[in-house]
Amino acid sequence: MTRIIDITELALRDAHQSLLATRMALEDMIPACADIDRAGYWSVECWGGATFDACIRFLNEDPWERLRTFRRLLPNSRLQMLLRGQNLLGYRHYEDTVVDRFVDKAAENGMDVFRVFDALNDIRNLQRAIAAVRRTGKHAQGTICYTVSPLHTVQGFVDMAQRLVEMGCDSICLKDMAALLKPQPAYDIVRGIKQACGEDVRVHVHTHATTGVTLVSLMKAIEAGADCVDTAISSLSMGPGHNPTESLVEMLEGTGFEARLDKCALKRIRDHFAAVRPRYAEFMSNIHGVDTDIFDSQIPGGMISNMESQLKQQKAAHRLKEVLIEVPRVREDAGFPPLVTPSSQIVGTQAVFNVMMGRYKAVSGEFADLMLGYYGAAPGERDPEVVALAEAQAKKPPIECRPADLLEPEWQALREAAIALPGSDGSDEDVLTHAMFPQVAPKFFASRAEGPKNLGKAPADSAAAAGGAAPAAGSAGSGPVRAPITYDVSVNGRSHRVSVTPVG
Amino acid sequence: MTRIIDITELALRDAHQSLLATRMALEDMIPACADIDRAGYWSVECWGGATFDACIRFLNEDPWERLRTFRRLLPNSRLQMLLRGQNLLGYRHYEDTVVDRFVDKAAENGMDVFRVFDALNDIRNLQRAIAAVRRTGKHAQGTICYTVSPLHTVQGFVDMAQRLVEMGCDSICLKDMAALLKPQPAYDIVRGIKQACGEDVRVHVHTHATTGVTLVSLMKAIEAGADCVDTAISSLSMGPGHNPTESLVEMLEGTGFEARLDKCALKRIRDHFAAVRPRYAEFMSNIHGVDTDIFDSQIPGGMISNMESQLKQQKAAHRLKEVLIEVPRVREDAGFPPLVTPSSQIVGTQAVFNVMMGRYKAVSGEFADLMLGYYGAAPGERDPEVVALAEAQAKKPPIECRPADLLEPEWQALREAAIALPGSDGSDEDVLTHAMFPQVAPKFFASRAEGPKNLGKAPADSAAAAGGAAPAAGSAGSGPVRAPITYDVSVNGRSHRVSVTPVG
Repeated sequence: MTRIIDITELALRDAHQSLLATRMALEDMIPACADIDRAGYWSVECWGGATFDACIRFLNEDPWERLRTFRRLLPNSRLQMLLRGQNLLGYRHYEDTVVDRFVDKAAENGMDVFRVFDALNDIRNLQRAIAAVRRTGKHAQGTICYTVSPLHTVQGFVDMAQRLVEMGCDSICLKDMAALLKPQPAYDIVRGIKQACGEDVRVHVHTHATTGVTLVSLMKAIEAGADCVDTAISSLSMGPGHNPTESLVEMLEGTGFEARLDKCALKRIRDHFAAVRPRYAEFMSNIHGVDTDIFDSQIPGGMISNMESQLKQQKAAHRLKEVLIEVPRVREDAGFPPLVTPSSQIVGTQAVFNVMMGRYKAVSGEFADLMLGYYGAAPGERDPEVVALAEAQAKKPPIECRPADLLEPEWQALREAAIALPGSDGSDEDVLTHAMFPQVAPKFFASRAEGPKNLGKAPADSAAAAGGAAPAAGSAGSGPVRAPITYDVSVNGRSHRVSVTPVG
Repeated sequence: MTRIIDITELALRDAHQSLLATRMALEDMIPACADIDRAGYWSVECWGGATFDACIRFLNEDPWERLRTFRRLLPNSRLQMLLRGQNLLGYRHYEDTVVDRFVDKAAENGMDVFRVFDALNDIRNLQRAIAAVRRTGKHAQGTICYTVSPLHTVQGFVDMAQRLVEMGCDSICLKDMAALLKPQPAYDIVRGIKQACGEDVRVHVHTHATTGVTLVSLMKAIEAGADCVDTAISSLSMGPGHNPTESLVEMLEGTGFEARLDKCALKRIRDHFAAVRPRYAEFMSNIHGVDTDIFDSQIPGGMISNMESQLKQQKAAHRLKEVLIEVPRVREDAGFPPLVTPSSQIVGTQAVFNVMMGRYKAVSGEFADLMLGYYGAAPGERDPEVVALAEAQAKKPPIECRPADLLEPEWQALREAAIALPGSDGSDEDVLTHAMFPQVAPKFFASRAEGPKNLGKAPADSAAAAGGAAPAAGSAGSGPVRAPITYDVSVNGRSHRVSVTPVG
């Protein structure tokens, strides 16, 4: 009795987001599409995450056009995207009807599978997006962000899965964006979900390769009943990326599990990206090989390099050690949020502030929001003293409700703002682009007619460019494109606007 | 009930042999020794394999002095070496009393654990070395070379383990030099050995990381009862090297197995080699990431690049594909030997000859020896027609006996040859050095007084040097130092001396 294991291929989204700072141009993916379409994957992740931002910020590429191109070139494949719940692909909460429109438009343009997550695992932030996906008849995948803390238990993750199933999710994803998922918890959580929710509830497992242990975790998850695992073709795998698709296939031989992929197609996909990858050497993550430090520090590698940059800018690079000790304390004060975009940046920056200016002498606007519930509920209780400080400095009350409940209908205003822009085509897609990236979209609309910019270079030139200050990849897991982040910092009641630009 | 899993650290031998073409100088290992000694490893592999050759050929380092240094700096550790059975560390069979002397001298200079293997898995070639080790009271580890062929079965490997135990081996090593060992066979073989030989027979498992699946194989081997697994500190791991020590430790958390190593010591060892490694960029293997092709081709990556070089020299690079098809046919004709030093080179070169000149129109002296039994018995039957051809061309009969049985006592002659050399110190160690590397030792003896040459460079200089034609690492697994190889080729009965220099 062989059980078929499904595979989600990550090459077109998370793989180059993790390894090449999300810079790969559509043009460099197109030649692989025919083989990807025939390889036999359960789904092809190809949109969302940071790719939308990167398209308009760096590549002068219309992300919606990218999606339509994938739909055309991958006619036999389920297209899959990563969606940050109520944040969509942006960095704030959107009002519910904006969420609805985004999902409608994504579905209309060809998206099949919506993997929806929230950085705090607050399922209220997933509710509307999940409901919207169900209304379109597409596949709604509810996501559990895996993290490790004194509050996070197997039972807690299983409970969350149950709530997601009750919400109507078509499948559950256990998402390990920081490569923290060890084999035994992988087994226990997947088994727990199957026992609690029923063996027929699909469980997908997403891991990164950074710590070197997660292919074993995928094996254990499969033994526990996982239906689908995420991998990336070998030439776009490993390091801060993912486990190699071909290794997953080979690993299963003789085990009673089988990933039925077309090996000849895999070889061609591999060869294509092996040729493409050196063209992006300049953007390549400087994390190579394996790094297990996160198991002790609990701090993703990308987050550490962000904090290093901030410290360097303030000529305080020598204080990194203090900051690394401060991060888990700040995380505890905030009720142990998973450290993933945006919580990783918010907690990291606050830790830097605490070390530089004294604990909570300055509180960033974002950290105050986090403490006061404006990102949603934290997994645990927040430190009441720090909440009081945040309340005093931000001059707004803590909230218990779903953050989006406070938002007024905004579609009309968003629409008017967008269509007024030179180069906007008046479509709902453009309105959504502008709504999510109001700082970047105007420039993109204005230059869109010039067509896509491919940042790939002849390998030698790209390697030479990498010799200088290479832009690092995003933070571990679903790291953001690194752009300046502006904080409203209030020190002893006085407000300052602080802009932090990672230089890494 | 936690079961302790022992770890053999490979950093000082196979890790840099696989990743840095065996070029690391003793000087660059010394600062890590105190931490290695206190980390809690079961053993530290640090000698044998290609390190002896590299010491005298490239580093002007006395390998015996290297051993004595390790003994002094690792007082609490078991020192471990890799020994090619009756070949010792050289490339021919030695007469029994030479084997005895080598083992005596290695033990005397500080060696504790002798891992003894034969490329053909002919246990007659292990017998004398194992007996010699037992006589010294040191640990004799009998080794099974893992390979895949229609003739190699779980039961066959288990039978070999039983014969090794009967021979008096203190432990069994399942050695996967080409990263071919998948999880299920790893489990089945280890379980089979434990069931057949007794649960208290120690089983060690050695794998390489090349194909990306073998950390899972180590997990399965551990579940099946393996006592000790081989890993390399993360900064000298992955690619054609090995699985990372730290990942192995973390992987086991919560599983009921535990590798009790000192994590702080591991971090310091890691940091040391992370700093050293870029100094050898020039010698770094050009295999990065993961390569699963070997599962289909059955040809180790290093062997392919050797054959590519040979073809290029003959301006026939375009015929590689034919050669890749010819290799498995030659291997089958030879009775399916494992492809490891020296059988990988012998089979590969013969495949090149067959494609260039017609099948077996030219037969290398080494291939004739392989076909006629002068390396030992093959796993399967050899093709009688090719045996007849080899016999006709080499003008010597096939043999059935243990090859070393044909050798006359040779110690006196070896001794006289060695001590006559300028710079020889007259010690048995020098005699053995010269016996194993008669072409290289004279120059080494003459220059020894100048002291070790460290080939490491400032990382930028080494990377620049790597930009040119970087010497590749040895072939997958226990690859040899790549030196010119001379073949006696007889074409239609006429003999030619052919020298093949890899240019990789």
